[in-house]
Amino acid sequence: MADKAGANVVSGRLGKALTRVQREVDDFFDAALVVPNDARRRLVDAMRYAVVGGGKRVRPLLCIATADLFGVDRATSLRAGCAVEAIHVYSLIHDDLPCMDDDELRHGRETVHLKFDEATAVLAGDSLHAFAFELLSGQHMSGDPFTRAQLVECLALASGHNGMAGGQMMDLAADYEDVPPFDLHSITRLQQLKTGALLSASVEMGMILGHVPHEGRGNLTNYARDIGLAFQIADDLLDVEGDEDKAGKALRKDDEKGKQTFVTLMGVDQARAQARALVDQAIGHLAPYGEEAVLLADLARFIVERDR
Amino acid sequence: MADKAGANVVSGRLGKALTRVQREVDDFFDAALVVPNDARRRLVDAMRYAVVGGGKRVRPLLCIATADLFGVDRATSLRAGCAVEAIHVYSLIHDDLPCMDDDELRHGRETVHLKFDEATAVLAGDSLHAFAFELLSGQHMSGDPFTRAQLVECLALASGHNGMAGGQMMDLAADYEDVPPFDLHSITRLQQLKTGALLSASVEMGMILGHVPHEGRGNLTNYARDIGLAFQIADDLLDVEGDEDKAGKALRKDDEKGKQTFVTLMGVDQARAQARALVDQAIGHLAPYGEEAVLLADLARFIVERDR
Repeated sequence: MADKAGANVVSGRLGKALTRVQREVDDFFDAALVVPNDARRRLVDAMRYAVVGGGKRVRPLLCIATADLFGVDRATSLRAGCAVEAIHVYSLIHDDLPCMDDDELRHGRETVHLKFDEATAVLAGDSLHAFAFELLSGQHMSGDPFTRAQLVECLALASGHNGMAGGQMMDLAADYEDVPPFDLHSITRLQQLKTGALLSASVEMGMILGHVPHEGRGNLTNYARDIGLAFQIADDLLDVEGDEDKAGKALRKDDEKGKQTFVTLMGVDQARAQARALVDQAIGHLAPYGEEAVLLADLARFIVERDR
Repeated sequence: MADKAGANVVSGRLGKALTRVQREVDDFFDAALVVPNDARRRLVDAMRYAVVGGGKRVRPLLCIATADLFGVDRATSLRAGCAVEAIHVYSLIHDDLPCMDDDELRHGRETVHLKFDEATAVLAGDSLHAFAFELLSGQHMSGDPFTRAQLVECLALASGHNGMAGGQMMDLAADYEDVPPFDLHSITRLQQLKTGALLSASVEMGMILGHVPHEGRGNLTNYARDIGLAFQIADDLLDVEGDEDKAGKALRKDDEKGKQTFVTLMGVDQARAQARALVDQAIGHLAPYGEEAVLLADLARFIVERDR
């Protein structure tokens, strides 16, 4: 269990929470994605291959742990967390495609386009994308339609051209000639979109479920922004220092491509110091929630210390 | 105008309506998709290239003409129609990719992956996908959150693995060895998903905006199902008999691939007769709406007689 959840830095409390949410998310997708007895079988097989039984499930746990602060029932926050995870997984499937990052390994297994084929991978990503919004909009989500509409809007904004997909474009744009080399400012902006937007949405959706008014969202919004950036710096450090077997994916890719990252721009030591400072700052934003927010604090620490 | 809207079979009334909706949809996307002054520029350029200034806009007009029957204000039905169109256009971008149908021409212009590149095409499709749900869920859509949530659910179901994407998988599956050759029953099922689901959603979203209760939706649901099938038979006929210049895309592709279609299974004459019978049947379902539904009747006729 400790191994699956990310090695010795995982506290008993966080390890337990991650193991539980990993099982719940797997069970949810396993039950929700029924393989049809026709030629769509291949598509749903590919969706299930990608979404059942892999990943740390950081985003669902962020959503659930935030919602817990406001007494939201767990079936509801789990469902919202699974919608964010469906978006995250669709983006991994598309990012791994030969025309994008061309990756062969994900969570220690073949990527979807290798296990199936490219066309199936494109469609499986598209289908998980639509599925996320199906999960959020139906009456199973919440009896309150205003909450459902807000959740959809939050996730659509975070994943589209002004969020995750926009950040991915900025990342790829480094390969196009007319884009100046990244500096720290532009990398920060890029990562706030590419990784940060969906992590922030996970927290915001927990607050939407908790009916937290906009003016009460500042602290947790700041927490999410700080861990988002720390998460990406940790990813860049993993790419340089990590163990491919533990990470379950190809590393050293940034260096091969000569790509600028937080680590190439700041150096390993300063990058690690910066990630830890961001985590301390993130945890500081949790102060008003006291002991109740201990899981979110654990999660912030885990994000920079993880080895996968 | 007659040429753009689809030649001499377009009545003056329908021609006017199509020209108007084409201009409105173009203006809507032109205003809504603002090109940012950073490395996301390429992404939004690609989205705009695909979504501004092309296409017949049959789906927005279906949504608007249905909503008109129930007195919905046009800004609202246009916005919903644009959401359906965003989904339709994203699916065209992904379908045209080399790993899918590998098409070079769309609406008489280079496909997005040729004009830009494959990675940008994947992301532009993904971004239009998210954008559709952004359009439906925000307060600009409708003051009533229940309506917004219903619209999102309808469109997500129609576009995901149990709708459009599922149908596309069935279509591709013909190339995999373990799938039996299509018969008329399996092609009908496939096309009800691949093309029919989104056309039906266009009509259903018009009814959702009009607050039509489920038990009052039967006639227009049947209308949509019939024109959906007629639309696909007409597409298959176009593939055999059409003029590539007018169609603005490659034709004769089914035959090259040895693919079974309505036309290969029924022959040209029977397929045409079937399409016309479906249109008559569709128009019959409009009877309760009398003169008010004349545009939906015109649209049904246009769908089988169009030359692109």
